Amino acid sequence: MRARARIVSLRGVAMKIPEILVIETIHKPGSLARVLQVIGDAGLTIEHLSALKRDSGRTLWEITVEMDEEADRSLYERIGQLPIARFVGKSDRVFNRHRGGKIRVISSQPINSSQTLRDVYTPGVARVCLSIRDNPQAAHEYTALDHTVAIITNGTAVLGLGNIGPLAGLPVMEGKAALFADLVGINGVPILMTETAPARVVEIIAGIEMSFGAIQLEDFAAPECFEIEQQLRKRLAKPVLHDDQHGTAVVTLAALINGARNARLDLRASIVGQIGLGAAGNGIARLLFAYGVHEILGTDLSGDAMSRFKALGGRGTTLEGIMQHADIVVATTGVKGLIRPEWVRKGQVIFALSNPEPEIEPVVARERGAAFAADGKGINNLLAYPGLFKGALDARAPRFTDQMLMAGAEAIALFAGDELVPDPLERELHQKVAEAVRAAAARA
Amino acid sequence: MRARARIVSLRGVAMKIPEILVIETIHKPGSLARVLQVIGDAGLTIEHLSALKRDSGRTLWEITVEMDEEADRSLYERIGQLPIARFVGKSDRVFNRHRGGKIRVISSQPINSSQTLRDVYTPGVARVCLSIRDNPQAAHEYTALDHTVAIITNGTAVLGLGNIGPLAGLPVMEGKAALFADLVGINGVPILMTETAPARVVEIIAGIEMSFGAIQLEDFAAPECFEIEQQLRKRLAKPVLHDDQHGTAVVTLAALINGARNARLDLRASIVGQIGLGAAGNGIARLLFAYGVHEILGTDLSGDAMSRFKALGGRGTTLEGIMQHADIVVATTGVKGLIRPEWVRKGQVIFALSNPEPEIEPVVARERGAAFAADGKGINNLLAYPGLFKGALDARAPRFTDQMLMAGAEAIALFAGDELVPDPLERELHQKVAEAVRAAAARA
Repeated sequence: MRARARIVSLRGVAMKIPEILVIETIHKPGSLARVLQVIGDAGLTIEHLSALKRDSGRTLWEITVEMDEEADRSLYERIGQLPIARFVGKSDRVFNRHRGGKIRVISSQPINSSQTLRDVYTPGVARVCLSIRDNPQAAHEYTALDHTVAIITNGTAVLGLGNIGPLAGLPVMEGKAALFADLVGINGVPILMTETAPARVVEIIAGIEMSFGAIQLEDFAAPECFEIEQQLRKRLAKPVLHDDQHGTAVVTLAALINGARNARLDLRASIVGQIGLGAAGNGIARLLFAYGVHEILGTDLSGDAMSRFKALGGRGTTLEGIMQHADIVVATTGVKGLIRPEWVRKGQVIFALSNPEPEIEPVVARERGAAFAADGKGINNLLAYPGLFKGALDARAPRFTDQMLMAGAEAIALFAGDELVPDPLERELHQKVAEAVRAAAARA
Repeated sequence: MRARARIVSLRGVAMKIPEILVIETIHKPGSLARVLQVIGDAGLTIEHLSALKRDSGRTLWEITVEMDEEADRSLYERIGQLPIARFVGKSDRVFNRHRGGKIRVISSQPINSSQTLRDVYTPGVARVCLSIRDNPQAAHEYTALDHTVAIITNGTAVLGLGNIGPLAGLPVMEGKAALFADLVGINGVPILMTETAPARVVEIIAGIEMSFGAIQLEDFAAPECFEIEQQLRKRLAKPVLHDDQHGTAVVTLAALINGARNARLDLRASIVGQIGLGAAGNGIARLLFAYGVHEILGTDLSGDAMSRFKALGGRGTTLEGIMQHADIVVATTGVKGLIRPEWVRKGQVIFALSNPEPEIEPVVARERGAAFAADGKGINNLLAYPGLFKGALDARAPRFTDQMLMAGAEAIALFAGDELVPDPLERELHQKVAEAVRAAAARA
């Protein structure tokens, strides 16, 4: 799961993001190890490593490390001083893949004859316009509406980076649009706004809503995100979903279903404890209650967050209270190492979902007796949102219901097989989720 | 030119739009003639005709006729009663070409490995976000902004159909987006709104403007279109263009340059007379003054339109006054046959631009002594807008200037060679227009 940064940003902890180092080594035993040792000595963990090419006794490596802005860059020099290595530079691969943007709008047919032009533009288009004027339902058939989703942000809570503004959030929105296109053939349209006051955000979105078949709210900060989503759901007769709440909740529910099964626990009969009740935590609590979990304990530094949680039916307690009483612990705080190993009880199931660094390392939790433990690495919203929207649009659903979200979660859990969650690049997964969501919408 | 429907809609004249009839004839001399005679007897003009297939002594024809909603459909029966023909039906080709919409959003690269996913989405995307946060200019390089244009309408003046609403206007917006994509590689994003009050339209657009590199206003009715565009131009530091005013003006100026040359007139030294001063007429007057035309006479039924025209420097007169004094007449009224043949003076240049039916047929005007006459058939905004926006975006221009519009018009006129205007599907035309506009922006 992407780090939900409420607490992170309050505390000003720098976010770690990957830097790709390009390093050449002499092709001899021990060369790569010495390079990695220097990186390790700098306190950095290797995230990914691959050989780019090898010739004349030298190998070129791409080494990805998680670095925050305060990381010690003198590391580069120390690598260069090794007799067996040369620091070539940092890779521009990530930036190159963003150059010129990540999405393209194309015509669904080539327009290379005057006849085609007369059909798709004037004068032919007039007949299609009139048929929609006379019967607005025809827009579903003769426009792209039914596979067009707005991806809207004001940039107030982008990834774990906090309030970096909408323009800086655009690469994330384009990424989501590219994935919508690639995985389920949906037209994702990034929409950026600087407005932050909920009532005005709602006015602006309501002012252009008819351009889209559905609306994905993305990276709006809590607590404003709750009011914005609620108002829009009330006002618009089309699917609206704040992904940071409900997309995360769907994927987390899928992981909990499989994690509980793995630990031979009955999820619905278990006491679930939630540490962190921001956008993600709140969405998870909502969906767990809808799924039939009877008892959820929760804690958060914010009194408002606690009030919202209690309004859902949750019971407030302390961090220690959760660790003492919960069968299943779900942490979404963004605070590394928040859960002390000695608090873990034997047989507990622990999901420490903050990225890039969890509230407790799964291996440590398991050493302390946890029946099952996982971090947020595989818990990616991408598992859910393409299928959720595809299913809702295919059903022409007027809104997302809890039934649709739960159907999506169950489809993800089922597709995972023996894994906790599936690979998000499996095309078939998204078809299955879409089908489950569409069927759930049809039953409503 | 598309009919500017101010007067049309005031008078409630039905718009003629093409209907495609599919008719089978026996493959014998005179068969087709007899079918066409029945169509002619019904008062309908053939717009287009093509043979779909021929086998076993029969030919299947697609015959396109312009029909309004009141046209006599008993025609179909009369064709069927001919011994040599069968009325097969109406073609769905236009509708089929609209099915599912005319644009697709695609990912600019396949996302089929976890490494690509990590680069274009989390965690890699975070680094790109931060680079834009630290330097907003980086958004030009690492997002699609610089080739993304909003195509915004409230549907108050769509084609010549009048106020049919934004949803019914969507096929036109998708058509423009498909043409943007196909001709100059721009991402066109249709944005629909129901709001009609200029101040609120401006607020909504300003609320989302940062999603786009430029903004095309489309099919907003006069007079609101003037205030909306003016306010947005004042407020936004990016190119904003109301196509119905300025796109039309650019293409008309191109045609006037070539038409005047054809008639051996000096355009700048000529008296130009404009009949009809709606969105199109107003834009044409503005651009002609900027181009250096000294004297423009104008007339319109609306006092507001006359006031705006006079504020530009135009001189108000009557329809007859224009026909008596103007060397070059430009009519954009939407009223068929408004110019009486006997008013035409020898040596006049006449552009009767309303579609589908001009204020005077060019052949009639020429018979009455006009040095040059043309209707609006080839005067298509599509000649201008792709290159105008491509050039403005390439230059990262903060606005469209008259210099940019004139440069576009001159490029169109030049590319036409011996014709009045070029073929809008010529890719090279749009490159030339874009280059001329970009260069003009760079000189500013």
